[in-house]
Amino acid sequence: MTRKDGSVGVVKTKHFKFDELALDSGQKLAPVRIAYETYGRLNRGKSNAILVCHALSGDAHAAGKHGKNSRKNGWYDIAIGPGKTFDTRKYFVICSNVIGGCKGSTGPPSINPKTKKPYGLSFPAITVKDIIRAQKKLIDYLGISRLFCVTGGSLGGMQALAWAVDYPDSVKTAVVIAAAARQYPMGIALHEVGRQAIINDPEWNDGNYYKAGQPKAGLALARKIGHITYLSHETFERKFGRQRSKSKTNGRFQPEFEVSAYLNHKGAGFVRRFDANSYLYLTKAIDDFDLTENGKKGLKDVFKSVKAKILLVSFTSDWLYPPEQVEELYNALAEAGVPSAYRKLDLPYGHDAFLVYNNTLGNILAGFIVEEAKEHSGSGQAAGGVAQAA
Amino acid sequence: MTRKDGSVGVVKTKHFKFDELALDSGQKLAPVRIAYETYGRLNRGKSNAILVCHALSGDAHAAGKHGKNSRKNGWYDIAIGPGKTFDTRKYFVICSNVIGGCKGSTGPPSINPKTKKPYGLSFPAITVKDIIRAQKKLIDYLGISRLFCVTGGSLGGMQALAWAVDYPDSVKTAVVIAAAARQYPMGIALHEVGRQAIINDPEWNDGNYYKAGQPKAGLALARKIGHITYLSHETFERKFGRQRSKSKTNGRFQPEFEVSAYLNHKGAGFVRRFDANSYLYLTKAIDDFDLTENGKKGLKDVFKSVKAKILLVSFTSDWLYPPEQVEELYNALAEAGVPSAYRKLDLPYGHDAFLVYNNTLGNILAGFIVEEAKEHSGSGQAAGGVAQAA
Repeated sequence: MTRKDGSVGVVKTKHFKFDELALDSGQKLAPVRIAYETYGRLNRGKSNAILVCHALSGDAHAAGKHGKNSRKNGWYDIAIGPGKTFDTRKYFVICSNVIGGCKGSTGPPSINPKTKKPYGLSFPAITVKDIIRAQKKLIDYLGISRLFCVTGGSLGGMQALAWAVDYPDSVKTAVVIAAAARQYPMGIALHEVGRQAIINDPEWNDGNYYKAGQPKAGLALARKIGHITYLSHETFERKFGRQRSKSKTNGRFQPEFEVSAYLNHKGAGFVRRFDANSYLYLTKAIDDFDLTENGKKGLKDVFKSVKAKILLVSFTSDWLYPPEQVEELYNALAEAGVPSAYRKLDLPYGHDAFLVYNNTLGNILAGFIVEEAKEHSGSGQAAGGVAQAA
Repeated sequence: MTRKDGSVGVVKTKHFKFDELALDSGQKLAPVRIAYETYGRLNRGKSNAILVCHALSGDAHAAGKHGKNSRKNGWYDIAIGPGKTFDTRKYFVICSNVIGGCKGSTGPPSINPKTKKPYGLSFPAITVKDIIRAQKKLIDYLGISRLFCVTGGSLGGMQALAWAVDYPDSVKTAVVIAAAARQYPMGIALHEVGRQAIINDPEWNDGNYYKAGQPKAGLALARKIGHITYLSHETFERKFGRQRSKSKTNGRFQPEFEVSAYLNHKGAGFVRRFDANSYLYLTKAIDDFDLTENGKKGLKDVFKSVKAKILLVSFTSDWLYPPEQVEELYNALAEAGVPSAYRKLDLPYGHDAFLVYNNTLGNILAGFIVEEAKEHSGSGQAAGGVAQAA
């Protein structure tokens, strides 16, 4: 089984709408639209569904292409497809865009039905738990009472954790990569400077920029700051070293090193594909994430209700969510008696290792999935027969 | 010997002026003023001088107070004074402000004699080697042909390294803390986003802001980004955790956590004491620092001329200049046959550990200094007798 066997081919983003969603803030979001894609087929027992949760800047387009001639694959195409880790010959894989985002699900750039204008800052505050509450509606709509697996890295990992905690009867296994029980203050600080880069940009205009255009400089800067935190010294050194940029610079203090030119390129690309207000809302949702509800509960107690078996993965070079933060989860799960496995991978790619993907990571995830599926079949719920996806 | 024994008391910043300085760029800086302070007395043999090099945002005021009632001590007061690590009963300690800075030495906010206006971006590009070339003029002026020790952390450590390489006959020992042979690309990237925060601020106005006032938001943001890189997860967690700020916030996406309020406080303080253009010039000088001249020379070859004995110190929690970067120095010095010592300290404070100072660090530095002084006395150059400082 090689991991690049096949593509799911041409796929289409679908949309699921529902009337309203009660939010943690006490407010309601109404109506709600969820953009999602599915790959593979749901079996008759509806027991082979895998929900893949995306990270901060991801979207519902996780695998395949949107057009026959598209040059771009879905963000997790390396892991989703026939013969790949999340094998679409066996599993029904679902990926949905988070609420608060800007890739088809309801978020700050969506039209506020009350004003007929984009929400902007009138969009209510959302939390990671609000995000998965919306996903639960989608899963219910698809007729799935129990997910075979929920998985994700970073913000996606936080979602997977929240699923296991909040919907214990709906999750058989969870694969949590490079995530933590709570956002730690250094992570908050790094998000804070990104948000301030946006807010400092006069074109942000208190979030009312949908007519005039994005706060480009601020959003690009926020992304550049974020992007640095996803890599590692080793990645930077291997990719760029101290190479000077070949592109001409005009004026003093213009980016001169290759690494700076690369960051500029990343920032400019992000401005074309992401909404500045969504960046504010989603980073804030991450910063507010705390399974212990700011220490009101012990993590062990939080995990006592969990019925899923959980695989945790950390990366030695991830300085944003370092291994100790993942180990805190592992220890608390063990204390709570939740069956879990933990793998610390010595990969050099930094936090982004969950996206870079390689055989080590792929084999571990695939191994866990295959083992669990065997157990699953053994329990009488055959994963073989497939039914048409909802 | 406790490290808080005594203060050097009330001190005054002095100024040394000279006609011109040839810069690495081929340009000349003329005239040049160097702000400096000295503590203790130069002995008759002029063999007891220690040059303390400051880091990015430091100044010449390293120890004591500027007024009897000043509340603020010099930035390295914890280490300089009678009975302290750099014991002013025995040593003549010198600290000077870097050129390109904004604390009394010639820099971008200084008056350009040609235009009678602040230099701004007409200030020439400067390098770490230009900085020490200016310091050498000061040391010559003070009548010192050989420094007993050159020391510094971060940019200060780069200066100490450059002294040992460029003026081998003028340096007996060097203590290099949390520095590297070159600025690595992740460090460049982190500086780059700080510089862009300044440049994005419309009030920066291509560096011509001296009448209208600083680009406050941009400079504060640059400092906040920098400040995060000087700390560690452990420091952030111990100091702030997920505490919410007590100060009222107005509006959405205003800092809400204690850590964000702290960064705001740090950013605002920095704007009051530091010049935005100096921030650009000095971070660029750090980014351009490369003892191998972008790979043209091997580090071992660079070190072959070094006559100083060198103590290198790294901190396990320093993710900006991690131990591997200091170890690269140690290995190259060993290959070049330069006597050197290396200590990796398991301190939790991140890069700023060199300023936080504690007994572990103090004892190591003091031990090295005392040992070297003994050897020094043994060689006949008595360090006892003191002469009036120049």
